[in-house]
Amino acid sequence: MTPETHMRLNLLFEEYGRLLDEDRLEEWTDLFIEDGHYEIVSRENVEQNLPLSLMLCDNKDMIRDRVSALRQANIFNIHADCHVIGQVRGTATESGFLAVSSYALFQSTQEGETRLFSVGRYSAALVERDGVLRFARQRVVVDTGAILTLLATPI
Amino acid sequence: MTPETHMRLNLLFEEYGRLLDEDRLEEWTDLFIEDGHYEIVSRENVEQNLPLSLMLCDNKDMIRDRVSALRQANIFNIHADCHVIGQVRGTATESGFLAVSSYALFQSTQEGETRLFSVGRYSAALVERDGVLRFARQRVVVDTGAILTLLATPI
Amino acid sequence: MTPETHMRLNLLFEEYGRLLDEDRLEEWTDLFIEDGHYEIVSRENVEQNLPLSLMLCDNKDMIRDRVSALRQANIFNIHADCHVIGQVRGTATESGFLAVSSYALFQSTQEGETRLFSVGRYSAALVERDGVLRFARQRVVVDTGAILTLLATPI
Repeated sequence: MTPETHMRLNLLFEEYGRLLDEDRLEEWTDLFIEDGHYEIVSRENVEQNLPLSLMLCDNKDMIRDRVSALRQANIFNIHADCHVIGQVRGTATESGFLAVSSYALFQSTQEGETRLFSVGRYSAALVERDGVLRFARQRVVVDTGAILTLLATPI
Repeated sequence: MTPETHMRLNLLFEEYGRLLDEDRLEEWTDLFIEDGHYEIVSRENVEQNLPLSLMLCDNKDMIRDRVSALRQANIFNIHADCHVIGQVRGTATESGFLAVSSYALFQSTQEGETRLFSVGRYSAALVERDGVLRFARQRVVVDTGAILTLLATPI
Repeated sequence: MTPETHMRLNLLFEEYGRLLDEDRLEEWTDLFIEDGHYEIVSRENVEQNLPLSLMLCDNKDMIRDRVSALRQANIFNIHADCHVIGQVRGTATESGFLAVSSYALFQSTQEGETRLFSVGRYSAALVERDGVLRFARQRVVVDTGAILTLLATPI
């Protein structure tokens, strides 16, 4: 891993978090490739090898649908996200990179009350196409078993 | 952005947080240029385009005054800060860099109780003079509407 | 400090946190040299120059013993750790590097409830042997005076 690649991976994760925090969900969607996979699973299920997901989008259209649903349901954004993401560790693969990091996600109400919403770990497969790194897979392994309703925003 | 510059920006933000955490406020002040601007605004006000600031120092003397006031008011430091700052994204400008990152600030009492004090985002304009990067502007956009009294320490 | 070295230091701290989070305590132990020193101290004691430690292992065998004790006492892992570690600042020394960073450690129960467990600062002395960076010393200065029982996991 060169410092240059390491920087690119860290900046991609930074962009991932920032787009969610700034409610730019459509641009966040564009960080995925067309057959990109987005999944939220609990650490408990991962450790017990259970196939249950808390959220699962098998391709980018499903991700788009979820974002559309969020847009229609929440005319007013009801909370503000703040991602603090740890250092990203990348490993080169044949088609790109595996990249992992820890994260903490805080949510604040419009009244300015902040709570710790979720902590856990990102586990991504990235591919490079036309010089741009994108997510072929983002798997969020959450330690926090917060009740993630159907319309919850992505983590 | 070269890895070298990326590293420098990240280390400047690291220094910013560490000087505050170690109560080295005078050295923290020296991270600003003479006409440096330090401001804390709420995300809500930013989104509604309201000009209100929670804290505003228009130049370095105002920052110095605030630090002096803190020194005189709090003979004993009543809490300890701990900043955890996310990856910094820099963009080159004509005179230096724009740099943004998320942050989480925790405060602990002398009895060792820790609370989440503030989360949000730094938005800085940096300039390079004599080979040293300094803040021409640091704008802290807070998600957490904690009541920041007149004598609160910087974020 | 070159970007390459800066990356290596950050990745070492990332590995440190990840091995703890994934309950790979034996591999975490191997990040230390044989006469490695691991210590947890409170910020209060550091500031008052008191020699008391909350946890102290003077060499790698003591670290191994502690991990063994944890393995025997906790047949089932009763909580999951999540470290979010800030940017690492390294300084070259004669024998290696000094490296500091802030951290936040979150713990989640098996029921999925997460709490902020500890925040503070790492202060490490690293040495390079056979091309591998290892901890000669890791000193954890905790802001949070959580009651760290004898069998608590490392921070």
